Amino acid sequence: MPVGLVAPDKETIFPIAGIWLGVASAGIKQGNTKPDLALIELAEGTRTAAVYTTNAFCAAPVILAKQHQAESAPRWLLINSGNANAGSGEAGFNAAVQTCESVATLAGDAPTSVLPFSTGVIGELLPSDKIKQALPAAYANLSEAGWYDAAHAIMTTDTIAKLVSTQFTLDGKTITLTGMTKGSGMIRPDMATMLAYIATDAVVSQAVLDNILQQAMAKSFNRITVDGDTSTNDACVLMATGQADNAEISDIAHEDAEILADEITVMCQQLAQAIVRDGEGATKFIAIQVNGGKDDVECQQVAYTIAHSPLVKTAFFASDPNWGRILAAVGRSGVADFDLSLVTIYLGDVCIIRNGEPASDYTEAQGQQVMDQDEISIRVDLGRGEASDTVWTCDFSYDYVKINAEYRS
Amino acid sequence: MPVGLVAPDKETIFPIAGIWLGVASAGIKQGNTKPDLALIELAEGTRTAAVYTTNAFCAAPVILAKQHQAESAPRWLLINSGNANAGSGEAGFNAAVQTCESVATLAGDAPTSVLPFSTGVIGELLPSDKIKQALPAAYANLSEAGWYDAAHAIMTTDTIAKLVSTQFTLDGKTITLTGMTKGSGMIRPDMATMLAYIATDAVVSQAVLDNILQQAMAKSFNRITVDGDTSTNDACVLMATGQADNAEISDIAHEDAEILADEITVMCQQLAQAIVRDGEGATKFIAIQVNGGKDDVECQQVAYTIAHSPLVKTAFFASDPNWGRILAAVGRSGVADFDLSLVTIYLGDVCIIRNGEPASDYTEAQGQQVMDQDEISIRVDLGRGEASDTVWTCDFSYDYVKINAEYRS
Repeated sequence: MPVGLVAPDKETIFPIAGIWLGVASAGIKQGNTKPDLALIELAEGTRTAAVYTTNAFCAAPVILAKQHQAESAPRWLLINSGNANAGSGEAGFNAAVQTCESVATLAGDAPTSVLPFSTGVIGELLPSDKIKQALPAAYANLSEAGWYDAAHAIMTTDTIAKLVSTQFTLDGKTITLTGMTKGSGMIRPDMATMLAYIATDAVVSQAVLDNILQQAMAKSFNRITVDGDTSTNDACVLMATGQADNAEISDIAHEDAEILADEITVMCQQLAQAIVRDGEGATKFIAIQVNGGKDDVECQQVAYTIAHSPLVKTAFFASDPNWGRILAAVGRSGVADFDLSLVTIYLGDVCIIRNGEPASDYTEAQGQQVMDQDEISIRVDLGRGEASDTVWTCDFSYDYVKINAEYRS
Repeated sequence: MPVGLVAPDKETIFPIAGIWLGVASAGIKQGNTKPDLALIELAEGTRTAAVYTTNAFCAAPVILAKQHQAESAPRWLLINSGNANAGSGEAGFNAAVQTCESVATLAGDAPTSVLPFSTGVIGELLPSDKIKQALPAAYANLSEAGWYDAAHAIMTTDTIAKLVSTQFTLDGKTITLTGMTKGSGMIRPDMATMLAYIATDAVVSQAVLDNILQQAMAKSFNRITVDGDTSTNDACVLMATGQADNAEISDIAHEDAEILADEITVMCQQLAQAIVRDGEGATKFIAIQVNGGKDDVECQQVAYTIAHSPLVKTAFFASDPNWGRILAAVGRSGVADFDLSLVTIYLGDVCIIRNGEPASDYTEAQGQQVMDQDEISIRVDLGRGEASDTVWTCDFSYDYVKINAEYRS
């Protein structure tokens, strides 16, 4: 059961003018009959920004998508679940090329206009023939209303589709923003995320679009972790079709750029947090805020050390206010010239460590009250600077082991 | 069930001339009636080397042990299980001081001659009064034959005592070496270990003893991980009573120093591996060797990334030859200028990746055969240098979650 997350309501998802989505069932994973293929068409003139995994063993589709994006403006995104096409060598790369060629043939477009994305099991060859066979069905049902089905087709161990939509005003025009993501395990994005696709109809320059994506990533997808494992396939794509008729946003310092960046960041945070809320086996959603650092890097260092600690994560699963494990994680985070006597730690609103000493007014009952909640915050103040950063994570449960011991992901 | 580890046989443990051990039941953990206190007496003239946790939130006994060791030659080690006396502030420090004073009063010695060690739950005040009351019993049963009982008294979540003993010849004299350790979870020692005590009767200078301990640590306790969590209380003590009548070893380059260092290193590896074999919930013992690195640091970086990956660890638990997870871990390990085309990976003796490509002769049946074993090796060749390093770890099971969700450690 995802923590504090409900299934998206199809009726509340706004289409984006100039973005069409279609799905099909390719049966990529043996025995699966649900749609596992999503095709997205981008209207001519759409600007696209994208970031990809930093994993050195990045998957074939990631390598190919980067090449295609460098060569021409993307007009098609092809996404399959059930197979990551990673660790699949030259044969895997050729399979990715073939799927792009299949789209190109169908659409009468160049193969370089297609960006391929794959998610699922690593180390098996992508069945490009099955994808070729299913593609006409996906092409035939391309629709601006296709977001809901596409958000479902890209799921793997996700228990719930992750899709959000909003509208706001820029330059007197209504701007629409809709985004979807997938991901549940192998989550510790680093300069990228699991698969995420966010589209807007705003008119915005390529440079501003790239900048906004970087900003938003740093506050959302790059600040979540389920298990510390960075996928070989992570990608996040931000598309702007430019059909909203607002004056083009070409200056990152302009107020409109700021509004757009804020809206996109909030959406990215919602989507990124949805991944954590639906983290494999998750029963708790945990926000870890580190304040008072000398710089962002050390704040992240402390936050991720807490977030990755199996002992902290199992204590949260047990709703056990075993704050000693949080303290031990802070202590081993490796921050240089660490001064304990400046450190204060809160569990929810309850102070557990004040200036390096156990808080004298802390009671186990107070700690228990916080731990009994589904959504929990930890705040660490390092007391040595002005920097601050937040990371989101989930707990570590029997079901995490079960999902990853039983599912070949 | 520990992996490939049997309970020590009391009859095979050699006493060390000049080392006496006694135990008592202090009832430190509510409801526990088993011995939880060990007192070790060191004969006058014993030289002692020690390394302690690098966790910035180190426990009160660690702080005090360092102070005492700097002031005078240790004559007494006092070890309790059931309470780590960590995160316990000034009151915890005072409790540690009191236990040393209790030993000093009983033995007619100075408090600075006592090194205190604690292991168990973090964040609770050490009941120094209970320890004071139990100490006379431990003092009364001090004996050179006390290793077996002491190895049991220092256990926490350990399912088996960890105690080994050996003899060899130096300078025509029989040298005896006996060592014990405890540890099962919160294991990722870094310049230290969980609690470990190794003693010899060899005559060896302080400088050589310190050097040998550093060497041995780097190849044993500092190369194991269960869950990546570095304890607040880790300590390893190497004692040499000098009663074996060999010519003093005072030159690290001398052949005798090399023999002694080798014997101590082998014993440290046995003890360190015993911790992993008895890792919380462990069902597999995994050796990860990384060869062909530019330096040791990058070899360790790759090895620890694999060893800490929850996805790799759960795949081992499931005996699933899901090598894609190993590959993904290698890929995200963050080695600079990583060249995939040079990387070769073996699972046991089965090649899974050759020069960055899936090995063409690999079959799932071969992988399954390796994964079905209890003891498994992974070898990664980075193909970019001559450095090599090995890390030992265990898998991640339901029982790890159970132990850490149900036990307040």
